[in-house]
Amino acid sequence: MVEKIRAVYELYGFEPVETPAMEYTDALGKFLPDQDRPNEGVFSFQDDDEQWISLRYDLTAPLARYVGERYGTDGLVLPYRSYRVGYVFRNEKPGPGRFRQFMQFDADTVGSATPAADAEICMMAADTMEALGIQGQYVVKVNNRKVLDGVLESIGLRDDFSRKLVVLRAIDKFDRLGADGVRALLGDGRKDESGDFTKGAGLTPEAAERVLNSTCPQEGTNAEVIAKLKTLSDTAIGNEGIAELEAIADLVTAGGYEGRVRIDPTVVRGLEYYTGPVYEVELLLETKDEKGRPVRFGSVGGGGRYDGLVSRFRGEPVPATGFSIGVSRLQAALTLLGKLDTRPEFGPVVVTVFDRDRVADYQKMVASLRAVGIRAELYLGNPKNMGNQLKYADRRNSPCVIIQGSDEKARGELQIKDLIEGAKAAAAIASNQEWRESRPAQFSCSEADLVAKVREVLGRHDVKWG
Amino acid sequence: MVEKIRAVYELYGFEPVETPAMEYTDALGKFLPDQDRPNEGVFSFQDDDEQWISLRYDLTAPLARYVGERYGTDGLVLPYRSYRVGYVFRNEKPGPGRFRQFMQFDADTVGSATPAADAEICMMAADTMEALGIQGQYVVKVNNRKVLDGVLESIGLRDDFSRKLVVLRAIDKFDRLGADGVRALLGDGRKDESGDFTKGAGLTPEAAERVLNSTCPQEGTNAEVIAKLKTLSDTAIGNEGIAELEAIADLVTAGGYEGRVRIDPTVVRGLEYYTGPVYEVELLLETKDEKGRPVRFGSVGGGGRYDGLVSRFRGEPVPATGFSIGVSRLQAALTLLGKLDTRPEFGPVVVTVFDRDRVADYQKMVASLRAVGIRAELYLGNPKNMGNQLKYADRRNSPCVIIQGSDEKARGELQIKDLIEGAKAAAAIASNQEWRESRPAQFSCSEADLVAKVREVLGRHDVKWG
Repeated sequence: MVEKIRAVYELYGFEPVETPAMEYTDALGKFLPDQDRPNEGVFSFQDDDEQWISLRYDLTAPLARYVGERYGTDGLVLPYRSYRVGYVFRNEKPGPGRFRQFMQFDADTVGSATPAADAEICMMAADTMEALGIQGQYVVKVNNRKVLDGVLESIGLRDDFSRKLVVLRAIDKFDRLGADGVRALLGDGRKDESGDFTKGAGLTPEAAERVLNSTCPQEGTNAEVIAKLKTLSDTAIGNEGIAELEAIADLVTAGGYEGRVRIDPTVVRGLEYYTGPVYEVELLLETKDEKGRPVRFGSVGGGGRYDGLVSRFRGEPVPATGFSIGVSRLQAALTLLGKLDTRPEFGPVVVTVFDRDRVADYQKMVASLRAVGIRAELYLGNPKNMGNQLKYADRRNSPCVIIQGSDEKARGELQIKDLIEGAKAAAAIASNQEWRESRPAQFSCSEADLVAKVREVLGRHDVKWG
Repeated sequence: MVEKIRAVYELYGFEPVETPAMEYTDALGKFLPDQDRPNEGVFSFQDDDEQWISLRYDLTAPLARYVGERYGTDGLVLPYRSYRVGYVFRNEKPGPGRFRQFMQFDADTVGSATPAADAEICMMAADTMEALGIQGQYVVKVNNRKVLDGVLESIGLRDDFSRKLVVLRAIDKFDRLGADGVRALLGDGRKDESGDFTKGAGLTPEAAERVLNSTCPQEGTNAEVIAKLKTLSDTAIGNEGIAELEAIADLVTAGGYEGRVRIDPTVVRGLEYYTGPVYEVELLLETKDEKGRPVRFGSVGGGGRYDGLVSRFRGEPVPATGFSIGVSRLQAALTLLGKLDTRPEFGPVVVTVFDRDRVADYQKMVASLRAVGIRAELYLGNPKNMGNQLKYADRRNSPCVIIQGSDEKARGELQIKDLIEGAKAAAAIASNQEWRESRPAQFSCSEADLVAKVREVLGRHDVKWG
């Protein structure tokens, strides 16, 4: 799965780069959503010099640090297009779909201000889903933070940072709570089913309605959605955002991605550092929630433009846009969809130990199989019982086992037991007695023929490894 | 490189398994060498429940925890043969060859007490080096902690844990300090070139000589070295260790690894948890130290039997043996040896932006190239200057660029500039003037032929990606 994603990112011209799992805490910044305490959600510790170090909580902040150090030097070709895959860490209580460690796969373009860079990443997100085999079951949704900023400005909230956050979080819950729920959260607040009360943003009903109109789901083509947004915008920043969405929509149409990449005013994205277009890959696949009700699987990745993040390390503005796939979440989705091949691989050929004194002989057989590329191993458990050895091979899903007792050794022969054939035969045989007498799928061959005969068995069952 | 190692480990029948980067501190244990303070060298922090969590400092301790939880259940087939690759973390001052984060590639057999399991891992280590192309430039050295324990017992140090450690560290420095240096460290102590004094183990001259005899380098075949060790051993534990080495040597000979896997009494291994055979892969390649003197590159991996490590989690003894490759170190060695292909990969085909208004057209060209699997991208920087765009393509090592001005567009044509051919031609042309007039390696084609013509260029230069 990771290799399929990698292939798409490389096709798009992105280059691999790796940054460390830990960074100086100052360099990472504090951009996690829903933070009330500083550094909440981040694993941090002091090194021997008492400097604070944190584990990365995403792959974007470390990239910004990396680029900030190299920006303007020969080591960095601009625009800088790179991808990276790795684990990130969050200091949260683990729960369903919430892990302390999970894998992300990111691609970013730094040093490009054009919406073409954002459009490209959205199309790449779509191509990635196609490469993973989920045609027609996903949508890449695009919005623009500037459109949201315009609405907030028009209701007088532009510089009220903390109420702005409450509004953004309310909008983000449209999927789950619907228009009425969001309306309540924009106004005085909302009591949920358990009776817990969430304080609202305190907007007037008019202001709340205005926010809701600009951020509720819209039907229609990209052009129709943009036309609707235009009727709602009356600020310079909002118009700028809409113009960028229009540029993205044009490129999406030109590239043939209309319908798969959609302008969608509901997209907010939790991270605070986004400054322009934001995007999200949503799977349309339905699954069940804890109460057995059908729910959409939801987002498996997202991103956006973060023009301020590299600038933190520089005295100059540095435009940047990027995208992150939640690999662990996507993997869960693909498993649900049956798109991941979970059929167990074949185990190695197992050479059993019949005579404890002849381990070196058995070891030689193993070496001869490995020498021609056949996965093989010597049984390394206690060899006192042949039944245990066969059971082991069975549980390893071995295609066959090799047995050589002293009688066979004296004749220069050995036994090959075909476990795949044997399992089929076992299904057709009634009694244990009959089974033992018939010894199905077991045959003798001369020592010299070991490799050739094992190859025959593997070929018969089309056994391939790796 | 990681893929080559993986292929060998799988050929040997090991299965991949991954454990998290962090563990509860208690579960990891304290086994790092040279620890004076508890937890020195380990990154640790508290989670929200104030439980201590540590980043893994190797891949063995987390495996022991993982196996400890599953031992005896259906989830674990015994003997359990697994491999894993990942980053590990040490809270140390970074320096040459010392990193806070580095990659290890491990394989372990748990639940097998036979020296055949140790022998197999030594042979696998040799095969891994062969697969990486360093025939004849490595040796897998094997010793046994029981042999060392026998010597320590015979000089009355068996239960004196702290002096034992001082003795082990002294032996470990034979390579660097020679017999006289080790003799001093076993006795009263040693003053180094800078005048710093290291306190010794305080052994009598007789005891020191006895240790030195049993642990100094030995010439000869494995059988000869073992014969020599036998003459020096007078304890049950020492004899047991020698018998295990003999069993390993027999299997090594049977497998045809004599000379590549060598019994070597100098091997100690720093980690405290080893209980039997210990092994080390040493590269024979010479490099220079800080003062320009030739030194052996040294160890790139090692391991041993750690029968006590899983037992920590169980009420029963659990034999286990394993091996770890220091991927980062090995990578440095392979680079020195020229065994890693560091030739820069080709970059993507770059479609330049001549007319800013026609980005959607250029985007379509990019899409048509990607659709047939050709790495391609739109130039996403500021398009005001075509020279910058060509320079970008050059620095990305692009095989060719696509240019379409309004004149070409009107004729339904475009220009392909072959950068590889162009670079060759440039070398043969004297003046800038001549260069500009000849426009080497640039040709027109119809828009419809874009993909076919780019394919021709890529074919001509044998450009392959991935």
